[in-house]
Amino acid sequence: MKIEVVGLDADDTLWHSEDGFHDITERYLDLVGPYADGRDRADVMSNLAAVERMNLGHFGYGVKAFTLTMVEAAIDVTDGRIPTTALPAIVALGKELLARPVELLPGVAETVPRLAETHRLLLITKGDLLHQERKIEQCGLAHHFEELEIVTEKDPDTYARILHEHDVSPERFLMVGNSVKSDVLPVLAIGARAVHIPYEFLWAEEHAEHDGTVPELRSITQLPAWLDAVESD
Amino acid sequence: MKIEVVGLDADDTLWHSEDGFHDITERYLDLVGPYADGRDRADVMSNLAAVERMNLGHFGYGVKAFTLTMVEAAIDVTDGRIPTTALPAIVALGKELLARPVELLPGVAETVPRLAETHRLLLITKGDLLHQERKIEQCGLAHHFEELEIVTEKDPDTYARILHEHDVSPERFLMVGNSVKSDVLPVLAIGARAVHIPYEFLWAEEHAEHDGTVPELRSITQLPAWLDAVESD
Repeated sequence: MKIEVVGLDADDTLWHSEDGFHDITERYLDLVGPYADGRDRADVMSNLAAVERMNLGHFGYGVKAFTLTMVEAAIDVTDGRIPTTALPAIVALGKELLARPVELLPGVAETVPRLAETHRLLLITKGDLLHQERKIEQCGLAHHFEELEIVTEKDPDTYARILHEHDVSPERFLMVGNSVKSDVLPVLAIGARAVHIPYEFLWAEEHAEHDGTVPELRSITQLPAWLDAVESD
Repeated sequence: MKIEVVGLDADDTLWHSEDGFHDITERYLDLVGPYADGRDRADVMSNLAAVERMNLGHFGYGVKAFTLTMVEAAIDVTDGRIPTTALPAIVALGKELLARPVELLPGVAETVPRLAETHRLLLITKGDLLHQERKIEQCGLAHHFEELEIVTEKDPDTYARILHEHDVSPERFLMVGNSVKSDVLPVLAIGARAVHIPYEFLWAEEHAEHDGTVPELRSITQLPAWLDAVESD
């Protein structure tokens, strides 16, 4: 059956993102480690993850939330022994990540325009509004999308609202992304389809499993052929 | 001439917001003052405003951005003398502000449903996506609005895009809000109309002047009568 609308996730589907968090996390561990007496790197890391999880309800997703989490965790994991003067370097990690230029994943620059010739495209992403808008603007692909949907949570209600707004029925909607939790399961829950394209790194909070029946592609470059095959079924 | 669509600002137009920033700023000054040797309260305040202005390009608007600014400013204005253990109290101010229940301004609960009977309503606000969505959900008025537009910047381009999306011409659009800079001037710039309803506090970064010809109301409760008068002209 013909798919009318393709939703594409952005971070780690169109461009690199999680590798940046991975990188500043390593540098956070380097900065904080010397003051975390008696705790090894894995300990400092699991403290950071715990503070992040605790803060998710307060701060939501994105770099600003993660920067506040790093500040809190650095004080917590060192029992206040990290000197105040070491903290601006942690805030600077967040600013650096916000300022990082967008780097498209391989094949995205060619594949998105090709998909736009055959399907209505929506970009559906969560995270910080300002940061996401900047990345969308920088990526040079915004004009291929019918709309840019920046949402706070990718749950079934969110997808149902988006499909309703764009007047497309679930069986004619396909979501494509790197997160089973955000891009696959809630989409299946409303009766639409999903394709999973894993990325090298996955944030622990995004981890989820599907039942093994969800199509998985190695790269977005395989998507046009996949669509062709499915639609001629 | 009949106005078709009324855009309403949210923070300090529908509900209290700036008073919360005002309150946590006072408490920031109480916390940081004792470590800011040789600087008086006004000095500490102007340092905070300077760091905030510097960070606007990095972090944008909203409570998370302001919390990061408070952390940076506290270290800066005390030349690192504030102890690390005093900083979690500053992050806690931000969490407290995020968790503060929405408190509608007087007359809003009655006036918004009344306006919705006669006009298509848009809620147009900037700031943090998660925080704004929560406030909109909590306020109990969301269903009166045709759409909730959470934007990163209220400039003429943003308003032009919104009017285009909602298929309304500038002469049939009215924007109502407390900020001359965000709710009045960019709206006049695209040939639409604006009504200014000042709030008790105004963030310094939002300060701007209009030429004196913009209608100013004391309260949103005066808006239905104002619309009646203008539309029967």
